[in-house]
Amino acid sequence: MTQANSKIETLRWRDNKLEMIDQRILPERFEYVTFDSAAAVAEGIRDMVVRGAPAIGCASAYGIALEARRLERLPEKDFESALEKSFTELMHSRPTAVNLFWALQRMRQAWSTVKHQSHAVIAQKLLNEAKAIQAEDLRVNRAIGKHGAALIKNNARILTYCNAGALATAGHGTALGVIRSAVEAGNKVSVFTGETRPFLQGARLTAWELVQENIPVTLITDNMAGHLMSRGEIDVVVVGTDRVAANGDVANKIGTYMLAVLAQRHHIPFYVACPLSSIDLGVANGPAIPIEERSASEVSGFRHTQWAAEGVKVRNPAFDVTPAELVTGLITEKGVVLSPNREKLKKLFEK
Amino acid sequence: MTQANSKIETLRWRDNKLEMIDQRILPERFEYVTFDSAAAVAEGIRDMVVRGAPAIGCASAYGIALEARRLERLPEKDFESALEKSFTELMHSRPTAVNLFWALQRMRQAWSTVKHQSHAVIAQKLLNEAKAIQAEDLRVNRAIGKHGAALIKNNARILTYCNAGALATAGHGTALGVIRSAVEAGNKVSVFTGETRPFLQGARLTAWELVQENIPVTLITDNMAGHLMSRGEIDVVVVGTDRVAANGDVANKIGTYMLAVLAQRHHIPFYVACPLSSIDLGVANGPAIPIEERSASEVSGFRHTQWAAEGVKVRNPAFDVTPAELVTGLITEKGVVLSPNREKLKKLFEK
Repeated sequence: MTQANSKIETLRWRDNKLEMIDQRILPERFEYVTFDSAAAVAEGIRDMVVRGAPAIGCASAYGIALEARRLERLPEKDFESALEKSFTELMHSRPTAVNLFWALQRMRQAWSTVKHQSHAVIAQKLLNEAKAIQAEDLRVNRAIGKHGAALIKNNARILTYCNAGALATAGHGTALGVIRSAVEAGNKVSVFTGETRPFLQGARLTAWELVQENIPVTLITDNMAGHLMSRGEIDVVVVGTDRVAANGDVANKIGTYMLAVLAQRHHIPFYVACPLSSIDLGVANGPAIPIEERSASEVSGFRHTQWAAEGVKVRNPAFDVTPAELVTGLITEKGVVLSPNREKLKKLFEK
Repeated sequence: MTQANSKIETLRWRDNKLEMIDQRILPERFEYVTFDSAAAVAEGIRDMVVRGAPAIGCASAYGIALEARRLERLPEKDFESALEKSFTELMHSRPTAVNLFWALQRMRQAWSTVKHQSHAVIAQKLLNEAKAIQAEDLRVNRAIGKHGAALIKNNARILTYCNAGALATAGHGTALGVIRSAVEAGNKVSVFTGETRPFLQGARLTAWELVQENIPVTLITDNMAGHLMSRGEIDVVVVGTDRVAANGDVANKIGTYMLAVLAQRHHIPFYVACPLSSIDLGVANGPAIPIEERSASEVSGFRHTQWAAEGVKVRNPAFDVTPAELVTGLITEKGVVLSPNREKLKKLFEK
């Protein structure tokens, strides 16, 4: 198991460059793309070479580290303004996942502690911080996995959605981390994954991760979840998140809300695996979370194959909001928060 | 409008053969496939050259008519047993839509009235009956449209699903018939259609039909419906059906159930356009309706493009069941049956 996990290195630092698995072409091809500037990383995030809230957090941190190294020989003033520009560019690469802002905030903090030292020292400090963010994410996912595994019964039939796996994080995964940890603890599980239109993270990425580890996985189209639930074929739902508001509302991949509504109707527990870095106490509730709209061509087909009738308009919101009332529990690295609300989330950061 | 409608002739009788629009290749190509035997029609139904409950009813009727003509010169005994074989083959072409059985029952009835006459007379009688079934379906859809249009407010934002249009019927459509009739009556509407994975009837067929008629249509992936409803962007849902049980439970394209659950949560009316030929008083309730499972390759990709991870298992139920409690009304050719139940459906056939 550990060996298989370590195979999926979503991001890696090699020869002073960032390498990331190209998630647009999986599972047909397994290839790394190399990045040497913040602008390139921002483009990679926008284009979804890398996706998943924790992973884009890590990627943006490395983007800053790369840029600091690249700018090292500039005069101080130019260095500062250019690095500031990179912060802004990365900040705007995708709007919904809060981990991006969280990671950039940490990088800014790290920068501030060495601001008046040499550019070489700054660059090294920022690289160390990016590496620390990545290492910490892996530890956090392991802790989420441990807490979450305790919620998974033997022989559980688990529905997951999109990809909250190793590919969405520094490794192990959040929702898939819970599943991996349950399996490591000796439980038998079987997993259903929604294909997750339009980008097909479920069919391409989650299925690929689980097949690699011999965890039984069954692919369904997103519209089949209700049918399976109504037939008693799902015991528990575990998904990831891109941002949790202060009141416990959960933004996640478009279609998550529908699964939560169906789970409630069928009295099926609905868990959200959620590192503290995904909780945004600065946003009051779900409707206040910005929802990214992506390009029409993603919905009118897939990659270069377009199948929709010409002339049809398209909507493509990439995320939706599940109200806290539908969430059985948030699985965090500090434990499980049942029936999340404003008070409980606030406390989580006080501990 | 009428001109555009008449363009979409899903089935047509030409030169003593049946021609059907190939719905597998729309909207890229608009082509008719020619059928000259019951076996060919059965294969066309299985392969979804033609789909949609009323349309496959019409197709199966023509299949019998074709076969009777083809077998005309056989000795009486061989004629009978061969035609019986065709009834059986067509009956087993798809299991969920009841219109298939309904139409074949009508053909059997027509046959029985001329059983002892010449094969030429029988063949002509069966062809006349198939034509009558087709003509009747068009009239029924017009009546459904008229009753349904009265439920659609001006400027309504209507969500439909799969394709219950001209392509699913002899013309005009059931759910799309309601929309067409509302537009003919002078209402402005805008339509959202779910793409309807895996066969993409919404993206390919419904979008194509509505674009042809300049009815504003927006394509979404199936998992976006909840998001739009939660934002107040949907006023009413209108779908078709493959079979309604005696208690009012509705079998329709996989994913319909999920829309009904979401509509209830958001207090959005959920209507099912339903010819009487789709109501099966012989089946007590939804769970007793057989649900077809189709091949894995439909879910693991689309046509020749396969994108799912290799080794993943697949489920592919083609339909699901929406319990009657979630149905605001059935729109039939005899009027709208609000809150359908056993008594109301029974009465419908007594009138």
